[in-house]
Amino acid sequence: DKPLKVGKFTFQSRLFTGTGKYANYGLMKESLELSGCEVTTVAVRRERLIDTQGRNLLDYLDLSRYTILPNTAGCFNAEDAIRHARLARELLKNLENPGADWVKLECLGDKKTLLPDPIDTLKATEQLVKEGFQVLVYTSDDVMLAKRLKEAGAVSVMPAGSPIGSGQGILNPNSIRIILEYLKENDPDYPVIVDAGVGTASDVAFAMELGCDGVLLNTSIASAENPLRMAHAMRWATEAGRQAYLAGRIPRKMYATASSPMEGRISASK
Amino acid sequence: DKPLKVGKFTFQSRLFTGTGKYANYGLMKESLELSGCEVTTVAVRRERLIDTQGRNLLDYLDLSRYTILPNTAGCFNAEDAIRHARLARELLKNLENPGADWVKLECLGDKKTLLPDPIDTLKATEQLVKEGFQVLVYTSDDVMLAKRLKEAGAVSVMPAGSPIGSGQGILNPNSIRIILEYLKENDPDYPVIVDAGVGTASDVAFAMELGCDGVLLNTSIASAENPLRMAHAMRWATEAGRQAYLAGRIPRKMYATASSPMEGRISASK
Amino acid sequence: DKPLKVGKFTFQSRLFTGTGKYANYGLMKESLELSGCEVTTVAVRRERLIDTQGRNLLDYLDLSRYTILPNTAGCFNAEDAIRHARLARELLKNLENPGADWVKLECLGDKKTLLPDPIDTLKATEQLVKEGFQVLVYTSDDVMLAKRLKEAGAVSVMPAGSPIGSGQGILNPNSIRIILEYLKENDPDYPVIVDAGVGTASDVAFAMELGCDGVLLNTSIASAENPLRMAHAMRWATEAGRQAYLAGRIPRKMYATASSPMEGRISASK
Amino acid sequence: DKPLKVGKFTFQSRLFTGTGKYANYGLMKESLELSGCEVTTVAVRRERLIDTQGRNLLDYLDLSRYTILPNTAGCFNAEDAIRHARLARELLKNLENPGADWVKLECLGDKKTLLPDPIDTLKATEQLVKEGFQVLVYTSDDVMLAKRLKEAGAVSVMPAGSPIGSGQGILNPNSIRIILEYLKENDPDYPVIVDAGVGTASDVAFAMELGCDGVLLNTSIASAENPLRMAHAMRWATEAGRQAYLAGRIPRKMYATASSPMEGRISASK
Repeated sequence: DKPLKVGKFTFQSRLFTGTGKYANYGLMKESLELSGCEVTTVAVRRERLIDTQGRNLLDYLDLSRYTILPNTAGCFNAEDAIRHARLARELLKNLENPGADWVKLECLGDKKTLLPDPIDTLKATEQLVKEGFQVLVYTSDDVMLAKRLKEAGAVSVMPAGSPIGSGQGILNPNSIRIILEYLKENDPDYPVIVDAGVGTASDVAFAMELGCDGVLLNTSIASAENPLRMAHAMRWATEAGRQAYLAGRIPRKMYATASSPMEGRISASK
Repeated sequence: DKPLKVGKFTFQSRLFTGTGKYANYGLMKESLELSGCEVTTVAVRRERLIDTQGRNLLDYLDLSRYTILPNTAGCFNAEDAIRHARLARELLKNLENPGADWVKLECLGDKKTLLPDPIDTLKATEQLVKEGFQVLVYTSDDVMLAKRLKEAGAVSVMPAGSPIGSGQGILNPNSIRIILEYLKENDPDYPVIVDAGVGTASDVAFAMELGCDGVLLNTSIASAENPLRMAHAMRWATEAGRQAYLAGRIPRKMYATASSPMEGRISASK
Repeated sequence: DKPLKVGKFTFQSRLFTGTGKYANYGLMKESLELSGCEVTTVAVRRERLIDTQGRNLLDYLDLSRYTILPNTAGCFNAEDAIRHARLARELLKNLENPGADWVKLECLGDKKTLLPDPIDTLKATEQLVKEGFQVLVYTSDDVMLAKRLKEAGAVSVMPAGSPIGSGQGILNPNSIRIILEYLKENDPDYPVIVDAGVGTASDVAFAMELGCDGVLLNTSIASAENPLRMAHAMRWATEAGRQAYLAGRIPRKMYATASSPMEGRISASK
Repeated sequence: DKPLKVGKFTFQSRLFTGTGKYANYGLMKESLELSGCEVTTVAVRRERLIDTQGRNLLDYLDLSRYTILPNTAGCFNAEDAIRHARLARELLKNLENPGADWVKLECLGDKKTLLPDPIDTLKATEQLVKEGFQVLVYTSDDVMLAKRLKEAGAVSVMPAGSPIGSGQGILNPNSIRIILEYLKENDPDYPVIVDAGVGTASDVAFAMELGCDGVLLNTSIASAENPLRMAHAMRWATEAGRQAYLAGRIPRKMYATASSPMEGRISASK
């Protein structure tokens, strides 16, 4: 398998993790290690970066090991997201982390569902691309918006499988498939990374089997009963799903000797 | 994690493979190795064991490495299945393979769907248990039959996720869940192994996440476009699914701040 | 559309109802009327037929309007079920209801799940057929058992969509499709009636769209918040599903101009 | 049940039909009648309105019976859609059809998938609302866009269940549920009408059971093998689904005596 390329970055691991919701920094550190990730995403809003005891999350990450992917979580309009993206660039430049050059853009509609707002997401993407950012953009599974975000210059489009933290996995594989068909047309290496909704290992494997290039997840590890075990599971699920995709699965049939793949499914009502 | 116990046998790997449908013996050997399996199942009917060139499949397996699980594939009634189970015992005794003591019982209804016949399956199980066999019994996902098969003395019940070779994965997780609830009541280590129907890696992970103790598969590797890659995928999918099960996944919710798990699902129509 | 034939009986309505769990007999009567059913099933075990006030359920049904389908609910082995089938025959003969000639056989595995026991179900079917009963037999969606039950002489096989009262609808359409393929081979009018599991109207429509000949349900009406409205819904869902089946639905495609039906589904992992 | 209100319009039937793809006008007329619809939608682009023989579709519709809902199908940007909406208004004014006051806005991304473009859809909605149109707006199931479209003044938001003509039904009920939660908050009668993707009767019933206020469909009738039968099916499916929604369905459980609704589903992995 070839490595994953996202803009100017190259990685062996196709699993991106988050740093939120862990019971403590020690557990976070160990979970990240077990996940095998090379990229971890960090919210740069002050109230998320600095905890109630004044500790800075970045001090608890091995910056020589991970490329930090700053994100704009907690931003609910384009202006706010753009401002925090710039702030992140300064922050990571000062730390000399390669993550200074990219950003995971989150422009959310509201706090209740944390679903992305399509209009401000596109607006912020256009602006940040202009400013030279490598934008990885979190979005819904709306196909035409995904297409527009790529056209706007995003180095990766990151559709949600289901709402952030919902644990429902990929609810609409049909949309993800069409997104893949469109974004990879004449550009097969363009990275589509499922971001949000993953609940467990099979969700990750399934995302990879659809042909996605990677998965970003956080809650499913951090809020599992045993995050360490789940980090381990996610590592192997990513690898399993990727290899299964490359291996070319057998077709689905009603039974093995059925004359055509899933004939039963299609001629259901006759 | 503790090892998998099936009757008197103990294994580290929870993936059982089959030996049918490979393009050639070399590919079979290498695929088995990459899958990490410790058990592989072999059909003992003559027409399956000896190929058209007179070569015996068993000569192409590293018998010091694998425990052979003989199966009665191709048998369509209890008598025939019992006869072939006895034959298998002789065969493996002569080879001094520990697999002499157990058998995967398949009593199929017909050649078209390869679905198991419940009546003869139960009859053959009762007889083989009487004869001292450690019986692992292939069955549908019928809950009450699974219960009866355990009561009849089977050391493992092996429900189908979907028809053999269909690649549809686990079509009825509700049945598998009830089977697990029943067969593991006051006997948590009783092994329930999904046998048949697996199409790709996420199917395996999902089976393990339900709490199954292992997965047996054959076509999904042997008939994949690239069996070696798929064998690799299946190895990690088994591990990923098992670890995810033990880790305790997050609940499914309509969105993360929804007040109860999957409330939307339940109160759907109001 | 032609009428539904089950053994020697002929009906216009393809919806069979039950008589259990209603808050009171008045509600039951009215719900049955709104459902448009011509057949309603009655448990003949004494504790179910006679309520705590000594009232006989049959006195609250318009016997000139409905064909009573006696059932053996509450019987957990073949002997008990056979005894109650005979008892039902006497009972309905005395009432001069045509239902004296048939019986819905239920041989359940236990009280917790109310799932059918395959072995005793087959045994009781064989005996009751010998005694001249027209047997409609409740069973799981196990294909080979369904085949055996038809071969044993049942005038209708009634697979469960999901456990009785679970409201989950048809969990394994693949099994129902194969049952239909087998039981209707060279016998297209052989009636397969989904019995159990229906939760709401779309479940009924879906069952009919698969090609089933009818649906039997009880809890989904009796335990709905508003049974009268739900009875009405079930009537039209049965009709809608049947007509949709006969109409021949459009194929499923990833999008309308996709070159083949559901190509995306099949070549998912490439 | 109360009637459906959409802007200033009131209807008894909750099924909206389309007029495209019929083999001939006679079949169209008869199908519409059997569907029981009171609203039918007509594409106002010249190449769709006038057939190759120069015949105007509107001459073949009973304008005294149906409220025509003009639509902008075939428009791929806001300007074009706005222009055709204005054109439609003139056309229907001249015909004295009440449909002159409203429009179903379609702003599509491309011809291949016919998926809606979110940006131009919002832009055109804003403009048409300013011009006094009652806008019913076709959109994807993106929740935040649906919210914005309502805020922009659309009298109805019409999310796609799946791509136009795909016959896949509602692929992401979770999204539709959240859209309903948001758009009906403090405004329970705001009409959400599923538009696109319906394949068969159970899809319609399911949409209504989710709490949608209506369904718009075209291909599933026009391209069925027997459109007349399917029109009939769709009529009753709409009614069945609506009544089932109002009736309040039973909860889903693993089996009837399980202690909580779908407990098995939630605690799946433990």
